[in-house]
Amino acid sequence: MLHFPQRDHASPKVETPDPFNQFNHLLEQDLEQVEKEITRRLQSQVPAVTQVAQHLVASGGKRLRPILLLLVARALDYHGSRAIPMAAAVEFVHTATLLHDDVIDHAQLRRGRPSCNALWDNKMSVLVGDFLYCQVSTIIAEDGDLNILKCITDATTQTTEGEVLEITKSRDLRVREAEYFKIIEFKTGMLMSAATEMGAILAQADPKVQASMRQFGMDLGMAFQLADDVLDYTSVEEEFGKAKGVDLKEGKLTLPLLVALDRCEAKEAETIRQGILNASSELFKEVLKILKKYQAIEHSLEWAEKKLSSAREQLACLPDGEYREALETFTYYVTQRRK
Amino acid sequence: MLHFPQRDHASPKVETPDPFNQFNHLLEQDLEQVEKEITRRLQSQVPAVTQVAQHLVASGGKRLRPILLLLVARALDYHGSRAIPMAAAVEFVHTATLLHDDVIDHAQLRRGRPSCNALWDNKMSVLVGDFLYCQVSTIIAEDGDLNILKCITDATTQTTEGEVLEITKSRDLRVREAEYFKIIEFKTGMLMSAATEMGAILAQADPKVQASMRQFGMDLGMAFQLADDVLDYTSVEEEFGKAKGVDLKEGKLTLPLLVALDRCEAKEAETIRQGILNASSELFKEVLKILKKYQAIEHSLEWAEKKLSSAREQLACLPDGEYREALETFTYYVTQRRK
Repeated sequence: MLHFPQRDHASPKVETPDPFNQFNHLLEQDLEQVEKEITRRLQSQVPAVTQVAQHLVASGGKRLRPILLLLVARALDYHGSRAIPMAAAVEFVHTATLLHDDVIDHAQLRRGRPSCNALWDNKMSVLVGDFLYCQVSTIIAEDGDLNILKCITDATTQTTEGEVLEITKSRDLRVREAEYFKIIEFKTGMLMSAATEMGAILAQADPKVQASMRQFGMDLGMAFQLADDVLDYTSVEEEFGKAKGVDLKEGKLTLPLLVALDRCEAKEAETIRQGILNASSELFKEVLKILKKYQAIEHSLEWAEKKLSSAREQLACLPDGEYREALETFTYYVTQRRK
Repeated sequence: MLHFPQRDHASPKVETPDPFNQFNHLLEQDLEQVEKEITRRLQSQVPAVTQVAQHLVASGGKRLRPILLLLVARALDYHGSRAIPMAAAVEFVHTATLLHDDVIDHAQLRRGRPSCNALWDNKMSVLVGDFLYCQVSTIIAEDGDLNILKCITDATTQTTEGEVLEITKSRDLRVREAEYFKIIEFKTGMLMSAATEMGAILAQADPKVQASMRQFGMDLGMAFQLADDVLDYTSVEEEFGKAKGVDLKEGKLTLPLLVALDRCEAKEAETIRQGILNASSELFKEVLKILKKYQAIEHSLEWAEKKLSSAREQLACLPDGEYREALETFTYYVTQRRK
């Protein structure tokens, strides 16, 4: 059965219909095969690698990128078996980037940040992430399509560059909206874009259709990140399952903050600056008040809606049918979710 | 000019002739091009990536794997330009594995191990390592040879698996020689083996010759690691440039220890066990005495010599000439070096 488990989130109170329930029947068999492929590809000559990798990958996750890849491929009438290992590959890249993003640096340890690496230490996370990247290359080498190798390699490169950019801009109060959009384009948009483009490549779609699917994934990915960055301020803790205000604590200048900084008075800007430099729950509450006063949340969600509207336009090039409808359903889900 | 700078070692007192001086003229132009290729491939849209990567890759290293790849390719009469990006690629894999190996886990921090990440924090090391892996995939995608993709991917996978195996066997007193040899085969042998095999693939050599070159790199790599593991006990600190006895401190059961454990009396075995579990400079001296008493160093070097002798046999399939001689010179250098 299709499911939408949380990697590191608590169980959500379902307020919006789960989009997957609506097209469960479309991908049920495919996703079963993807899970089998994932399990098979996590076999290693070194048992510890398999154990840790299984814990991390097989224990769940939305499988959002595999689902997108499969829906695009099927929408374009590709029903071959190559989509299964490719779907596993995009999930592996995603998991590897999460693993490497969880690595804790000295600064974070000094601030006593609760560890994501309580079970597996830093080094193991890094090496298992590397193993996953290697499995991606193995899958592509077996498949043999150099266009797909280029597509997934470019996406992985830019995801990595996006993460470095984000780190270097952390606590930097000179960040502007253009830089924020570049960061989310790279760190979140690129891989989702690669997933949807790979679906179109597998279907040997017309170059224009490939470009539209690339754009669809990019728009959707950026909208997801915009919504995530809003949820970091608005979600109820039990629903989001992680501490609220993580971005402020980590000094990430996401769009809600940038909007507020642009609109607020000098004294309020100073409060935001203090929040970024020395996060505390009191300061978080103060900052949240300022965000609300200047409609920073609404403005950020408007940006997400713009991206989603663009995403829906891209779908026009796909043949009518259930797969296209499923992709459209996704775009409505992004800003409605509360987790 | 060819050089042999140390990544993280102090300047050595030269006691043995540097093998590179003897065949400097053979690869001088190639290696200049490799350096240019490395610099070019480190360009990123995110300046911080380029800065850190240049610091780490361009600042030196033996370029041992590029040299081996080039010597094999040229020995087999391949003089095309594809060898240059491939040489950069094997160096990138090597640097990325070093970067990810330098990531400090919690346990090591707790033991107050001096940081290799003083300049760049853990997270940056991980991401720049990832960037290098991505550049390898980009190089292969541009080149388009799927055999080479498979060769370098398998080597990277097994290097990673070897590092995980080594971590999981750390401080495990049940380790046996067979496991030690598997660890060094994976973590050091595989990538050197891929470098020499890639040289033969580029030259479109006969499958038998490709297999011999693969074996040559494996034997040479394992001999290098055997010699390194001996040097960790025998080198004078100023020469080796890093603290003596690092392996004992990290609980690595390398061959000298395994040999001694196999030969010594119960009381001495207990001293070794104590050294592995709670390293101190006093215990290191005690352990070293035991290694000397039971010729553990000599026995380990004999193993290295066996590997080097096998390596030299593999060279028989290469045409006579300066390139083959240069490869042979390498095999004599391995156990003679003091650093």
